[in-house]
Formats: sequence, C-alpha cells, structure tokens
Amino acid sequence: MIEPSGLDAGAAAGQAVVRADRGCVIWMTGLPSAGKSTIAETLAPALKARGERVELLDGDVVRENLSKGLGFSKEDRDINIRRIGFVAELLARNGVKVITAAISPYRSVRDEVRELVGDHFLEVYISTPLDVCEDRDVKGLYAKARSGALKGFTGIDDPYEPPLNPEIEIATQGETPEESAARIIDVLEARGYLDVP
Amino acid sequence: MIEPSGLDAGAAAGQAVVRADRGCVIWMTGLPSAGKSTIAETLAPALKARGERVELLDGDVVRENLSKGLGFSKEDRDINIRRIGFVAELLARNGVKVITAAISPYRSVRDEVRELVGDHFLEVYISTPLDVCEDRDVKGLYAKARSGALKGFTGIDDPYEPPLNPEIEIATQGETPEESAARIIDVLEARGYLDVP
Repeated sequence: MIEPSGLDAGAAAGQAVVRADRGCVIWMTGLPSAGKSTIAETLAPALKARGERVELLDGDVVRENLSKGLGFSKEDRDINIRRIGFVAELLARNGVKVITAAISPYRSVRDEVRELVGDHFLEVYISTPLDVCEDRDVKGLYAKARSGALKGFTGIDDPYEPPLNPEIEIATQGETPEESAARIIDVLEARGYLDVP
Repeated sequence: MIEPSGLDAGAAAGQAVVRADRGCVIWMTGLPSAGKSTIAETLAPALKARGERVELLDGDVVRENLSKGLGFSKEDRDINIRRIGFVAELLARNGVKVITAAISPYRSVRDEVRELVGDHFLEVYISTPLDVCEDRDVKGLYAKARSGALKGFTGIDDPYEPPLNPEIEIATQGETPEESAARIIDVLEARGYLDVP
C-alpha cells in the first residue's frame, strides 16, 4: 500500500515541476503578410484560456521598445532578432510560452536563437507563398517595394531564407487562423508543453 | 462545518494565486561602485534558495544584449533604462522577481519605469557616498574620469539624481552585502512578496 502511494506522490510532484517548467519559444517566421501576427494573436488567447502564461513579442512592438534606431540592413535585422531571442529566452526559462512574430528572414540568426534557447525552441514556418502575401499586402509595403519607394524589403529585394527543418510548417491558404493555431496547439500537446484536455 | 471548510479552500486558492503573482522589480540605483551588483549578486541566490523565480538584469549584461551601440549621453542612457524597464516588467508580470543593477542616474526615466511597472516597483537606493565609491573604484573608472580620459562619468562630470522616495535605502558602509540583502528581504516579506519563514 505504501509503495503505490509513494509513486503517486512522486508522479504528482514530478508533474508539478514539469508544469512550472513548460516554457517555450514559439518562433514564427515567414514573409511579410504571411499571417504571422494574425496566427500569433489567435494562438495567444487560446493558450491563456488554458491557464498558460503567454507573452507575444510582435516584431513592431519589439522594434519600438528594444530596437528603436535600428534599420533594416542585414546587420540591424540580426541585432533586432538577437534581442527578441534574448528576451524570449529569459521569459521561456521562467515558464512563459513566448510567441514571437517577426519576419526573421535570415537562417543563421534564427539558428543562433535556437542555440540560445535550446530544446524549447519551436520554429513555426508560415510558408504562405510570395504571390499570396503580395496580394494580401496588409500594410501596403509590397506595393511600395515594387514601386522602388521602399528598399531592402523581404521577398522583393531582400532575401527570405526558409527554415530547413522547422518544428511546424503552416500554409495559411485555405486554413483559418483558428485552424493554424489549433495545429500549433496539437504540437505543443504532443511535445508535453500543454496537457491534453 | 461546511462554511469554515469553504473558507479554508478559498484562502488556499487565494494564496496560490497571490504566490504565482508575486513578481516584482527590485530596482537598484546608485553611483558607480556603490555596491549595486554586489548586493544584487547576494540577493539573487538568497531568493532562489527560497524557491523564487529570479532574474538579475545587470547593467553591463543588458548593454551587451539589448543596447549595444548606445553610448552614455543622457538620451542613450535613458533608452537603455527604458529597455531594462520593458524587459523587467515583462518578467515581473509573469511572476519573476527581477533585480536590476544599473546606475540609472536620472530620476525622470526611473519614474517612467515605475509608472510602467506599477505597484510592483521597488526602488532600492544604494546611497554609498561619492568619496567611498571613489575609494573603491571597482572598475578603475573614477580614476579615468578624474584624469579626463573618460567623459560623462556619473558622479564626476555627469549628474546622479538620488531617488526622492525610494522604497528602500541602503548605506553600504559598515554593512555586509549579506546584511544589505537581508534588509531587502525584510521589505519583500513585509510587503507580501515573500512568505515569512
């Protein structure tokens, strides 16, 4: 009678520790207008509704608060991404589910962040093709880039390097943001970052 | 019999919520060599030993990771402090006890951060006088500033504006870092951020 009881207590204690340490970084990457922010803004409240601690580090918000003055050269973009990575790691190691939604076009600096965060880094490639993104043109920036008014725009005259082995790939055409968020949640459950309800 | 039991359960649940939400920002400010980092590095493990989530945002570490390229003009110092404040607030609202140890010489931007963080901002003024700090000169920077090799050094040719109403004031002379840390812990207990052992 004592042994099973002891095991139960051990399992319960173990689970509590795991729960507290289930922080991770859900790193969205993709072309402008691919749907990163939309999916992030759908995913964040869904995770909060399950009692999780969640922070969304959107590209624009981070630029305002951590990277004002930086431009869009490769060097400046890399610095911006490193800063997001630094903050995301600080939060994730304290049990927070961090969702980032920056274009993060360069593979090497994404891999640097992956290295920094370790096992709890989940790269989510929003693989909406360029022509679809350009049709959406949420902020009107593709038009500006095509006209030459905007230089160094990712997908037009600056490269986007897709992930080679993302943990999750999401093609947003024919899928609602809710469906995309649900697919991320499935992976979080499968990997033990969320309880299966 | 039901009522007291119900109350107990309520109190227990209430306490659990409070425990998870006991994040705060312990914002050290003071002259160079005042003892900020030493006290922070003594306080952080003491809080961890009590099971708390703790992050120490040291001035130099933050400059490396969030503010590389910024100088020591008032404008750049203010940007650096705002960034520390932004990250500290993100962590504190997720239950982390954040200790910052940057000179943060200007009152107005410290008050901006206080505004951002809200009630959970504890300003700790390390009030070691200038002559004592200069005698210590941990990094040899006072000597450089006195010789004119270093411009805009806080306390010598750049102002330090002491807090007007800090939550805690610590004069480090005649007090060990352990004693200083213990005095901060007393305040954290008194304000409900730590259980009284």
